[in-house]
Amino acid sequence: MAGPVQHAQMRASNLALVLRAIADAGTITRVQTATATGLTKSSISGLVTDLVTAGLVEETEAVPGRAGDRGRPSAMIALHRGGAAGLGLELNVDYLAALMVDLGGTVRYRHVVTRDNRGRPPVEVLEELGRLAQEAVTAAAEQGLTLAGACVAVPGAADGTTISRAPNLGWADVPVELPLPRTAYGLAIENEANLAALGELWFGAQVPRDFVHVSGEIGIGAGIVVDGELFRGAHARAGELGHVVVDPAGPPCSCGGRGCLERLAGLDAILAAAGVDSRGELERRCAAGEPTALGAVADAGRLVGVALSSATNLLDPDAVVLGGVFAALAPWLAPAVADSLAAHAVGPELLVSSLGADAAVRGAAGSVIRRVIDDPATFLSAQG
Amino acid sequence: MAGPVQHAQMRASNLALVLRAIADAGTITRVQTATATGLTKSSISGLVTDLVTAGLVEETEAVPGRAGDRGRPSAMIALHRGGAAGLGLELNVDYLAALMVDLGGTVRYRHVVTRDNRGRPPVEVLEELGRLAQEAVTAAAEQGLTLAGACVAVPGAADGTTISRAPNLGWADVPVELPLPRTAYGLAIENEANLAALGELWFGAQVPRDFVHVSGEIGIGAGIVVDGELFRGAHARAGELGHVVVDPAGPPCSCGGRGCLERLAGLDAILAAAGVDSRGELERRCAAGEPTALGAVADAGRLVGVALSSATNLLDPDAVVLGGVFAALAPWLAPAVADSLAAHAVGPELLVSSLGADAAVRGAAGSVIRRVIDDPATFLSAQG
Repeated sequence: MAGPVQHAQMRASNLALVLRAIADAGTITRVQTATATGLTKSSISGLVTDLVTAGLVEETEAVPGRAGDRGRPSAMIALHRGGAAGLGLELNVDYLAALMVDLGGTVRYRHVVTRDNRGRPPVEVLEELGRLAQEAVTAAAEQGLTLAGACVAVPGAADGTTISRAPNLGWADVPVELPLPRTAYGLAIENEANLAALGELWFGAQVPRDFVHVSGEIGIGAGIVVDGELFRGAHARAGELGHVVVDPAGPPCSCGGRGCLERLAGLDAILAAAGVDSRGELERRCAAGEPTALGAVADAGRLVGVALSSATNLLDPDAVVLGGVFAALAPWLAPAVADSLAAHAVGPELLVSSLGADAAVRGAAGSVIRRVIDDPATFLSAQG
Repeated sequence: MAGPVQHAQMRASNLALVLRAIADAGTITRVQTATATGLTKSSISGLVTDLVTAGLVEETEAVPGRAGDRGRPSAMIALHRGGAAGLGLELNVDYLAALMVDLGGTVRYRHVVTRDNRGRPPVEVLEELGRLAQEAVTAAAEQGLTLAGACVAVPGAADGTTISRAPNLGWADVPVELPLPRTAYGLAIENEANLAALGELWFGAQVPRDFVHVSGEIGIGAGIVVDGELFRGAHARAGELGHVVVDPAGPPCSCGGRGCLERLAGLDAILAAAGVDSRGELERRCAAGEPTALGAVADAGRLVGVALSSATNLLDPDAVVLGGVFAALAPWLAPAVADSLAAHAVGPELLVSSLGADAAVRGAAGSVIRRVIDDPATFLSAQG
């Protein structure tokens, strides 16, 4: 059995090599693909044909041949943006979201439902998320897209397809089952702060390859990107910026500790300090220059700056990126964060996310696309 | 020129492959080396002969041949512990050190001079370090060891062989030149907290592959090891645990910030709080159960625990290791650190360094040995 197995592995690895070369180049000829991958032109031909048949690659246009091509026009090949799609879902404390991107990273579908999910039975929240997923599946079919897989962003940690803990929802060990059709890569669950950092890396405005992305929501999490890759830690729990201690004598936190950043500067803490009920109202009051609201946001910003000073001293990133609700509040929050970073003598670049609260669900959808590019053989097998 | 260059590169890479296989195995036959590396037996033969000639490898004993070896005894090969040596030097705030290890990691020479170097002209301190280095060179010659290179641990950052900043010494942009003989790998300068973590990884008692090693001295630094490799950050400044903020309203620190851990829990802060002048006196009073000394150490331990809670939430290590002076103070310091970690609800394993204040200079010497194992071709070239 060694022969066929090795052949299948080599074909899988070569398919990935070719698809990566096409994705990196944008458009490319078969001859250029051979040069980029080191594979022979005849190998390339068969592999490209397989990728075209699977709908991952398309031959776009013929250009006049150059010297050495004997005058025959060369077909240009590119990713097929009408082929595969990745479905990102997000289950967060105060909203649910579904978002679909194609192989080129373009958003093909987006639906966000704002609703406080605390206190709701998990089964009810998951049913609603399931309906969002089904609507996205219908939209994919209508656009002729083949769903490659789905990834759910959650405000906590996952073990396989179980949410092992989501403290701000009060959930533990909740299995996630969604009414999705069979897909090549199936269903994955991942921490939302990690996915938001990947969303920023893949789809955001220019960010460096070493940064800390802050997801400011009811909870506060961070995704740490080191040299273009997610830093996960020994137990996939790295980046818990919300539990960096900013006041050792501060109030108790849901984590069991005290003086944690998210207890003092998460969205609920800001709303309480501002004396308002909703994020929309907070933004309106800040825009109107209402001192209590502005003071509440600035106080939170100073504490975020303290935690980011500690994070910068430990992690030494090129930039810190304010994301989630903090991106929407940036006009009033970012100056306080910057002052606080300066007072603690650290100087990473301070950026504001261009994706805001969409970063995690974009990262979730993008993680499916990343799997297609890294492992197209599995997509081809699933096509039958 | 492509041919010879490629040949030299392949030989260099194969020499490293063979030496790594020998180092990993302890003792090994040529046939086993061929199996481990995938090289032919005739290639192995030439490479091993070169390594023996250079003094890096020795043929230890012949064992009776097994079936397939046609009855000829197989020579066992192993690292030559009387061959190359690495010189570690340390220039710290209150001591200077020199330590030499051989290829097997055994300490062959050690000399530590305790003296406060603050306020001394850099040229005078470097002259004294130069004398320590020369004494070590003499000791190497007396033991028949070939010095492969030297590495200096410094309490700050280096740029090439210049100490770019060492805030606790008040030094900036001090070039380091030492009266050392010409060696294969020359002179390197590296942050002491990083080298201490590597020392612990290579020579310490059992530590996991993901840990944060705390170097508690006048300053407090940390070395972060992720999956067995040093985590350096985007500008080689990661691990500044001493500047994690433990009291945002705290006293100003030499870094320009305020409320930094080392300002409140570094050795000077502990001595001041205990009302004593020296570390020896502090340890004596703690051992005698003197309440002021015990209180000062416990207060520092609680703050170290706060900073390590933040670090654990961000980095998610398997263990945190108390090193440097903190290892010596561990009987009185570690319980407070553990209480503080528990109060902030994080649970990495808390370990005490088995190397203590020697960790950085051991790591410095070990880093030279690591270079010999990774790149023996440079050692062979230097032999002429």
